[in-house]
Amino acid sequence: MLVLGVDPGSIVTGYGLVEKNNNNLDCIHFGHIRFPGKTHFFDRIHGIFQGMVELIEQYRPQQMAIENIFYAKNIQSSLKLGHARSAVIIAAVHCGIKISEYSPLEIKKAIVGYGRASKEQVQAMVKIILNIKSIPNLDISDALAIAVCHSNWAKFGV
Amino acid sequence: MLVLGVDPGSIVTGYGLVEKNNNNLDCIHFGHIRFPGKTHFFDRIHGIFQGMVELIEQYRPQQMAIENIFYAKNIQSSLKLGHARSAVIIAAVHCGIKISEYSPLEIKKAIVGYGRASKEQVQAMVKIILNIKSIPNLDISDALAIAVCHSNWAKFGV
Repeated sequence: MLVLGVDPGSIVTGYGLVEKNNNNLDCIHFGHIRFPGKTHFFDRIHGIFQGMVELIEQYRPQQMAIENIFYAKNIQSSLKLGHARSAVIIAAVHCGIKISEYSPLEIKKAIVGYGRASKEQVQAMVKIILNIKSIPNLDISDALAIAVCHSNWAKFGV
Repeated sequence: MLVLGVDPGSIVTGYGLVEKNNNNLDCIHFGHIRFPGKTHFFDRIHGIFQGMVELIEQYRPQQMAIENIFYAKNIQSSLKLGHARSAVIIAAVHCGIKISEYSPLEIKKAIVGYGRASKEQVQAMVKIILNIKSIPNLDISDALAIAVCHSNWAKFGV
C-alpha cells in the first residue's frame, strides 16, 4: 500500500510517498511544490493542482492523507490555506484516490507520541522512522509524518 | 465579449454568462451548482471544479469575474469559502480563461450605485439591466452582478 501524505500551502506544498510492506515503512519519494516569488496567486493554486495530478499519475498511490483543519492564524491565512488545500483535494478526487484526514494532534501523537510536539521534533522522528538522512524542510517532514500516521492507523490488512 | 460571473460557495455556487454587444448587455445563461445534502465536502469541491470546466467548455467565455475576498464570518466559513473559490479558479486557469476580481463594494456600486446595497436590491437591478423576469436565487443574481460589473468596467474596445 502506497500512501501520499501532503502538507498544502500557497507558498510551499510538501509531499511524501510512504510504502508499507510487512509492517516496514519505506519512503519512496518526497519533495515540494514551490513557485517563484512573483507568481500570481491563481497560477500558484492551479500549479498545486497540476503538480499533484502529475505526482499521482507518476507514482499511483492508492490513498492520500492530509491534515484536518479547523483553525488558522486569521481569516486571510485561512482563505489562502483553504485555496491550497482545495487544489490538493481536487487533484486526488480527479485521480480517483481516497482521501483520509487526521488532526495535527493525531499526527503528532502517532509520530512523536506527544500531541504538542514541535515541527522539529516531528522531523527528527520521521527521519528515524523512515531511515532518511536529511529532509530539506519542515513542509516535507510534515507531509511524510501524515503519510506515516495514515500507514500505521489505517487497516490495510497487513 | 462573453463574461462568466461566478459566486462560489461550498453549498451553492451561482454562475451567469453575460455578453456585451454595442453597449448592450445580454444574459446568455445562468444557473447554479448544488449537491444533495449528504454529499461529502471533497466531492462537492471536486464537483464545483468539474461543473465549471464543463460550463466553460460549453459556452467558451473569454473572461471570468469573481469577488475578491478579504474577510469572512469566521475561520471555519473562510476555510470552506476558500476551498470553493479555489475550485472555480483552478477550472478557469485549467481552461485558459483570464480571471478578474472585484470587491463587493465595486460590484454593488456598479449595479446599484451604492456600495452598501442589499443582495435583494442587487437582484432587482440585475433583473432590470439584463431584462430577466425571474432569477431563482441570490447566488445567481450575485454571479450575474459580477459579470455585469466586469462587462461594464473592462476595456473591451467596444
